[in-house]
Amino acid sequence: MSTFSDFDPPVFNNLTSAIRALAMDAVQKANSGHPGAPMGMAEIAEVLWNHHMRHNPGNPKWANRDRFVLSNGHGSMLIYALLHLTGYDLSIDDLKQFRQLHSKTPGHPELGYTPGVETTTGPLGQGITNAVGMAMAEKLLANEFNKPGHEIVDHRTWVFLGDGCLMEGISHEACALAGTWGLGKLTAFWDDNGISIDGHVEGWFTDNTPMRFEAYGWHVVPNVNGHDPEALHAAIEAAKAVTDKPTLICCKTVIGAGSPTKQGTHDVHGAPLGDIEIALTRPHIGWNFGPFEIPKEVYEVWDAKKKGAEWEGSWNQKFEHYAKAFPAEAAEFKRRMAGDLPAQWAEHARKAIEASNAKAETVATRKASQIAINALAPALPEFLGGSADLTGSNLTNWTGCTHVSGKSCGNYISYGVREFGMSHIMNGMALHGGLLPFGGTFLMFSEYARNALRMSALMKQRVIYVFTHDSIGLGEDGPTHQPVEQIATLRLIPNMDLWRPCDTVETMVAWTQAVERSNGPTSLALSRQNLPFVARDAATIQNIKKGGYVLSAAKGAAKAIIIATGSEVELALKAQAELAQKNIQVSVVSMPSTNVFDRQDQAYKDSVLPKGLPRIVVEAGVTDGWWKYVGGEGKVIGLDRFGESAPAGQLFKEFGFTVANVVSAVESFI
Amino acid sequence: MSTFSDFDPPVFNNLTSAIRALAMDAVQKANSGHPGAPMGMAEIAEVLWNHHMRHNPGNPKWANRDRFVLSNGHGSMLIYALLHLTGYDLSIDDLKQFRQLHSKTPGHPELGYTPGVETTTGPLGQGITNAVGMAMAEKLLANEFNKPGHEIVDHRTWVFLGDGCLMEGISHEACALAGTWGLGKLTAFWDDNGISIDGHVEGWFTDNTPMRFEAYGWHVVPNVNGHDPEALHAAIEAAKAVTDKPTLICCKTVIGAGSPTKQGTHDVHGAPLGDIEIALTRPHIGWNFGPFEIPKEVYEVWDAKKKGAEWEGSWNQKFEHYAKAFPAEAAEFKRRMAGDLPAQWAEHARKAIEASNAKAETVATRKASQIAINALAPALPEFLGGSADLTGSNLTNWTGCTHVSGKSCGNYISYGVREFGMSHIMNGMALHGGLLPFGGTFLMFSEYARNALRMSALMKQRVIYVFTHDSIGLGEDGPTHQPVEQIATLRLIPNMDLWRPCDTVETMVAWTQAVERSNGPTSLALSRQNLPFVARDAATIQNIKKGGYVLSAAKGAAKAIIIATGSEVELALKAQAELAQKNIQVSVVSMPSTNVFDRQDQAYKDSVLPKGLPRIVVEAGVTDGWWKYVGGEGKVIGLDRFGESAPAGQLFKEFGFTVANVVSAVESFI
Repeated sequence: MSTFSDFDPPVFNNLTSAIRALAMDAVQKANSGHPGAPMGMAEIAEVLWNHHMRHNPGNPKWANRDRFVLSNGHGSMLIYALLHLTGYDLSIDDLKQFRQLHSKTPGHPELGYTPGVETTTGPLGQGITNAVGMAMAEKLLANEFNKPGHEIVDHRTWVFLGDGCLMEGISHEACALAGTWGLGKLTAFWDDNGISIDGHVEGWFTDNTPMRFEAYGWHVVPNVNGHDPEALHAAIEAAKAVTDKPTLICCKTVIGAGSPTKQGTHDVHGAPLGDIEIALTRPHIGWNFGPFEIPKEVYEVWDAKKKGAEWEGSWNQKFEHYAKAFPAEAAEFKRRMAGDLPAQWAEHARKAIEASNAKAETVATRKASQIAINALAPALPEFLGGSADLTGSNLTNWTGCTHVSGKSCGNYISYGVREFGMSHIMNGMALHGGLLPFGGTFLMFSEYARNALRMSALMKQRVIYVFTHDSIGLGEDGPTHQPVEQIATLRLIPNMDLWRPCDTVETMVAWTQAVERSNGPTSLALSRQNLPFVARDAATIQNIKKGGYVLSAAKGAAKAIIIATGSEVELALKAQAELAQKNIQVSVVSMPSTNVFDRQDQAYKDSVLPKGLPRIVVEAGVTDGWWKYVGGEGKVIGLDRFGESAPAGQLFKEFGFTVANVVSAVESFI
Repeated sequence: MSTFSDFDPPVFNNLTSAIRALAMDAVQKANSGHPGAPMGMAEIAEVLWNHHMRHNPGNPKWANRDRFVLSNGHGSMLIYALLHLTGYDLSIDDLKQFRQLHSKTPGHPELGYTPGVETTTGPLGQGITNAVGMAMAEKLLANEFNKPGHEIVDHRTWVFLGDGCLMEGISHEACALAGTWGLGKLTAFWDDNGISIDGHVEGWFTDNTPMRFEAYGWHVVPNVNGHDPEALHAAIEAAKAVTDKPTLICCKTVIGAGSPTKQGTHDVHGAPLGDIEIALTRPHIGWNFGPFEIPKEVYEVWDAKKKGAEWEGSWNQKFEHYAKAFPAEAAEFKRRMAGDLPAQWAEHARKAIEASNAKAETVATRKASQIAINALAPALPEFLGGSADLTGSNLTNWTGCTHVSGKSCGNYISYGVREFGMSHIMNGMALHGGLLPFGGTFLMFSEYARNALRMSALMKQRVIYVFTHDSIGLGEDGPTHQPVEQIATLRLIPNMDLWRPCDTVETMVAWTQAVERSNGPTSLALSRQNLPFVARDAATIQNIKKGGYVLSAAKGAAKAIIIATGSEVELALKAQAELAQKNIQVSVVSMPSTNVFDRQDQAYKDSVLPKGLPRIVVEAGVTDGWWKYVGGEGKVIGLDRFGESAPAGQLFKEFGFTVANVVSAVESFI
């Protein structure tokens, strides 16, 4: 436990006391929240925001602003206080609505709710990971767009993080990469207060954190008194002086500093101080004002609107010069930062789909995905591909991509075996803007990254997950690697679109839809094994983008509908043919994306799945989710158990994915 | 990249060549697998298994055996070769069946398939984490059972791991805890071969790993030539000499060592060497024998059956002395290691349920869970509780539990903010035997641990996950913390039992079922907020354990069935009452565990959900999974979007979880 006896206590002043008071008062009013971190980090925040951070409260979307990430997101009142005080569009009334429904000040910082909040944080370890992504995006874009004398991409990324972030495994993945990449403009402030929810951390958190970060290749500034502005200034200057390494500033702080009887205990971590303690705190920190009352003089010092406008104005001038010298690059930079697709995109995508259809290749859909990447990459310089050490298996690279290696730049990243880190870093890159990140791993290891995928969806970010080896069809690697429930569970993340295409054309369409989706992530579930090309007419190809469609209509009055996805579409088509020979006509519906299909209007859905016909679903995964589409009468042929290690063909047979089985399932309803 | 020029190459001998030959030949025969790690680690394996590891091939279940974990599980032919050569019940014909259906030699080591395989590995980082759990179990059991002069629990845990394991975030969580706990009998061998699937790791893996592990408080032996038996011996002796820290032995190796043209490249990592290279390798390693041919002299040296029987025999004698001096402890140790419940368990559980019913408390189900833990702990000294830094929120501690802190022992662990690590460590403890681990976090952060939960289920381990704050009912913390899809996705893991109880009695029953479940894990989804006690008769209480049951039958002929779980059962009961006032009789089914309900016989299921009645489901989560129970006609009232930050009561209203909504849903079918 840090105590004030370990170092000089803060000299309270009205700038930091304003933060402390807003935090304790808002938490008290909401009767919910975390005062400890905002009060403990008040000096760090004041020094950074008033003296080092370059941002513009008048335009939270200024492309070259410094990014600030509160990785210990439970301390949300800290960032709300800072945004309010420096002049963002966040009023004192907004602060009074802390943690209330539809307010601009939710319990944790939420992207899109509050101007100036760069990312949603709360799940620990993820803010620092987002920040690594933002800093890497800055570095890659600077490398791509800056010209000698024209540093138009040149900003810093600042992160606050706590013990919890450092304990989480994802911090290892992200910070190791930050070191490898040499992200010199990334600075993290560790709120080393010695307290986590279970109490004093020495019973369960004994890492030598400075040594750990040195091992990652970071520049570490140890033993900074987090309540001493001069020491903090010096540390930040030291951070700025090291340009080829990220910096960790280790700030010894007292949690809840300013609360005379509760500071330094976990009582201040996640509960209101209470009226009595607040009454004691006000005089203790020299704050002679009522709740939510900030004197004009304090506002005046905090106000960053004027200097923010100047910073942005000066950058705008710089950008104008750049635009004159490099008009194409400037236009491209603007387009990229706006997240717009290129003007010729629609035409490019249409041709790519046509070409794929014309080529009629029978390949694995992971290979079809690589064909799609190759086809689309020339139109999308924002593509930033990668894989969690499975490039040759995920087939996420493309002809002409350039590999990031260590501190070098490029547009393809080997992230190492770091699925969770990769995914959250991609979120950070998407949040930064200017890049369209996609990354691959085996579908099974989407589980390692699960909460990052959820955060992509919650934050509505365009990130594309390339998940290959999507079923027992991967064969010999066995049950630890064979997805069974993963496709079903990915479909359940709100705002995640999961596609499981059946051939080259569906894969190409899925990729174009993923690229065009500006308000959410996409997961592609792709086969290891070859899947046959299916011929379609132009109208049918158009319907693929609706997520589910009649791939092969019954010849005559249908007696049943077979619904299938991915590798099982072949089975459905073969069963249809075999049934036709028995004079049983069925239609085959391919349903590469239930999520997208669910968004279609009822008339279209009814046209694909007309009422009154038995429906038989075939998918090599858990069955529960499919009953929604089966309705009253039908059957789901799936796999509600773990797989086995064996060659793929044997496994499909062993688990009943055979034409005979599909045929007999249909016949049972005739 | 390590090359032989960096250090002395291996002096090939028939002991290590047997490993290399078996690995390359089995992978070649299967035409699938990973020869690189077994060939690169042959010397390490030989030194450890022939000279340091204490095990008994004749009895893989010997309680005091050393545990061996192959964390780089893709190198499975290494452990199969070792088990075969040392005399386990794994024949040469079994090795020829490598990666074939229903063989004893699946693609990755799978618990239960192969005698001597201690845990299922393959998903990287998890083996080392399991091993930390095993070593911690050894330490805690030694502390509990050993007496002066009677060291009946006294074995080591050995782990092989690769770069991939070290890159994964979970290795950070697990290894930090191993250092904090001072696990002196844990030794890890890092196969530092400089190669991962994307190629030479220096582009994406630049950690100073020895420094990193020193930062965790490990004893590190750096720069060991992994092909030099003398150096390896010395390193292992150094590891044994340090008794209060785990040891990392950093072994410089060449991947695929022995393959003359492919060693040291990622070509040998995950593909057969090919007939040509194998033909070159045999003479290169001095192995003049055919595929799967091992000379008798080689078998004789490897054979550990005799010394294994002696080791176990000597321990048996020790245990007999112990049993004479401490008969109760000896009997308890045997019971615990067998995984049997105490003789009085059934009676104890019955009384706990009765008492819970008699007390009729209205509390949050997380509190009901703590009541259950308190009620059951006196009968279950094997309980090893814990939380990922949310003890006060998860309510996983109990009266009289003793806290592990740093190197001290106890039966309650604050794991820190390390959900994935905690979960896999619990798997390791369950695998070791003698403990019944349970651990808590917020339900949302089950996502961080997702693949560990799957591994509990795949390995059929009795681990109990206490997931609190199970819905939007947690209120102000907002969408990052509010589970929406988590309950549904946990239900989809094969062999996972998810319970979402509605009151104290259902919670107590869920806990007893979790304890009695000897072949799989249980997840408990528990509310933050109070839930009213529901009165039931004895027969109804009996039915709870069937997972779903008629909680409140219709008074008269039912017109519909309302199915609900957890906090929404209250809504269902109130809707039933309101409908009754309108002369619409409905029955209410409480379905705390769909997984368990699904295992009941059809007659029982039909009695709970009789055909022909509309079914209305109410659950504050995603809806897709419920259509399975709705059948032809019905409705699911749920939440297919992310939550919001606000007080809980407002959220339930905002999202339509109201009595009026349930009533009108029922009425729409009447």
